[in-house]
Order: sequence, then structure tokens, then C-alpha cells
Amino acid sequence: MPPSEKQTLAATRGAAFRIASGSAIAVINTHGSQVVDTWAFCADDIDHHLSMQHTRAHTTQLMPMTGSILYTNRREPILRIEADTSPGIHDTLIPACDRWRYELLGHVGYHRNCCDNLQEALGALGLRASYVPAPLNLFMNIPVGPSGGLSFEAPVSKPGDRVVLRALRDCIVVLSACPQDMVPINGANLTPMDVEVALIA
Amino acid sequence: MPPSEKQTLAATRGAAFRIASGSAIAVINTHGSQVVDTWAFCADDIDHHLSMQHTRAHTTQLMPMTGSILYTNRREPILRIEADTSPGIHDTLIPACDRWRYELLGHVGYHRNCCDNLQEALGALGLRASYVPAPLNLFMNIPVGPSGGLSFEAPVSKPGDRVVLRALRDCIVVLSACPQDMVPINGANLTPMDVEVALIA
Repeated sequence: MPPSEKQTLAATRGAAFRIASGSAIAVINTHGSQVVDTWAFCADDIDHHLSMQHTRAHTTQLMPMTGSILYTNRREPILRIEADTSPGIHDTLIPACDRWRYELLGHVGYHRNCCDNLQEALGALGLRASYVPAPLNLFMNIPVGPSGGLSFEAPVSKPGDRVVLRALRDCIVVLSACPQDMVPINGANLTPMDVEVALIA
Repeated sequence: MPPSEKQTLAATRGAAFRIASGSAIAVINTHGSQVVDTWAFCADDIDHHLSMQHTRAHTTQLMPMTGSILYTNRREPILRIEADTSPGIHDTLIPACDRWRYELLGHVGYHRNCCDNLQEALGALGLRASYVPAPLNLFMNIPVGPSGGLSFEAPVSKPGDRVVLRALRDCIVVLSACPQDMVPINGANLTPMDVEVALIA
């Protein structure tokens, strides 16, 4: 299905999109190595939202894949991964970056971060999350070793790779082009990049 | 260090314990196969709490182990796993059970659950969590396959196995002896059991 609207999500920024049940949103990794933190909130209740722990329990997978249904904190379907042209490496384990993350990494002063991007994006719709759920980190590469060890690695996606998320109920999808430039999760050159977003009827 | 107080946490029930910084709590799997959902909240702010996603990010392990420091949603240390006589199989991936979980499994009518146990236990201290963080599921056995598949299995712990959690700040630890009797995470005979708790100065 061709995209009906396309827009740029600037590097290090967030944006919120109202998606009606049955419509979809495509997240396009224009340059190939940008992680996109992704949340979804039910349109009728901001406290009812996409939940990584509930999604893991119901998919019985660490990482959702094409066809996976994603669940809320009340165990209801909210999104389906309709398509994924990337190798399918995404993350459900790691929280959104926040000011404390950058402080611990040694950054001095304010650093843009995905938690603040979430609230800014919701704020543009007159909303505020009462807390920050664990995001679906699209394209984020956190390999799990045989003994459960985790590491923060560069994405394995390619320029133009896209993930299509189909809404299974009216919801607000929030995306953040992760501003992380101190560890290589947005690629070895530590440079956050723009991504494109297409809204699909 | 010998336990200074010991008490029974009845099968299917929860309890909250105020633990001063430097003190500890031992969770003893009396019968060997009981999962204990575990939360910790900072004494001065219920919205500042133990977080599985932040703990995974900072330990870079799926599963904390003896010596691991457990982190809050503001990336501050809150607990340390001081000792663990079990094989060290615990879970950070799966949410607490709730009424929707049992409805989806086909249960009709009210079923006790760890989310309600959490709120009941906090309520006894005059507190209420504004949301339910993902718990540390002590003794819960969720093997991760080589492709990231998850399964719900019986614990591998033995009767008397204990985990000691040392408080790194004043906090409220909440335990729930998980009431799950429809899938075998509390053992193949689907029978929730008592556990013992010891408070250690």
C-alpha cells in the first residue's frame, strides 16, 4: 500500500502521530543506522499503552517480528508489525535514554534524550505521559549472548529499511530519532540522523 | 549474617517491607518451586522504583546474579543481590500476572494476582503505586532460546534456596507469592506455596 503522506523526523527529535484503527505508520531508516524509540498509547487513555513486557509474554519472543501482534499493559492488541524490510533486529530490553543516562556517560549540561522527546511530542497534542513505558527500539541492536550477556552495538539495518506498524485500535504513536551520540547504537560514527515517516491509510 | 526476624508469606499473597539502607531481606523458597514477584520503591518517592529495563541496561545482563546491583528508573542503585543459593535462574522479562492474564487463560471470576497483591501490600502501608513496574521475578524460569524464543517453565530452585537483597537506600520491598496455578511456572503441580521472608539488620 503506497504511503499517503511522508515527512521527515529530524535527528534527535520526537513526534507524535494519531493513527486510527486500521491505518498504519511506516518508519523508514533513511540513512540505515538510526535507532527509533517507539511508543503507542491508546487514544482514549494515556495510561493504557504498548508494553514491552506484556508483548514478550504474549509473543513468547524477545524481539517481535513481521506478523507479531504487540500488546498493551492490559494485554490488549494495539499494533501489528505488518512489514519489516530490515534484518529484523530490534530491541525490547533497554529503556529510553534520559538525562541521567548522559550524565552517567560523562556529558555535562543538557543532552537531548528520548524520554524528553516523548513528552515534548505528546505535549504538542496536549498530552503528557504519567511515566515513560519501555519503548520498542526499532533497529536497535542489543545482541544477547548465550549466558544472557547484553551489548550495545551498531544497527544492522540498511538505508531505506522500513518497518510498518498497523494500528489495531485508535492510538497515538510516538517516535524519537534517538539522540545517542556517546555509545555506538546509532552507528559507529556516533551521529544521529533524520528518519522518514509515512502515514498509510 | 543470621536473620533477625522470620515470617511466612502465605501462598498467593503479597506483603510490603520497609528496609533501611544497609539492611537486607532474604526470600526463602521454602518448598522450592514458588515464584516470588519482587518490587522495590524508594521510601521518599513511590514513583522512583526498581526497574528491570534500567537494571538490564546497567548490568548488561538479562538476569541479575550474585553481586549485581539493581537500578531504579532514574538509574540509581537501589538493591544488591548479596547472596543466592539457587541456580540463579530468575526472570526480568515477564510482567506481573493480573486479572486480564487469568481471563485470557480462561479463568472465570476473580483470580488472585500479583498486580493486586502489590497494591494490597502497599495499601497496608498507606501507599499506592501509580502503575505497576515490571517485577524481578525471583526463581521464575523463562528460558531464552537461541533465536530469542521464550517459554514458561517450572523453577529449577530447590527447597530452602534463598536470595538476599541488600538495600542500597531506604526502600519498600514488596513481595508476592505468585498465585499462578494455570501455567507451570510455580512447578508442574500448579500449586502456589508459602515462602519465608527474613529481615536482616
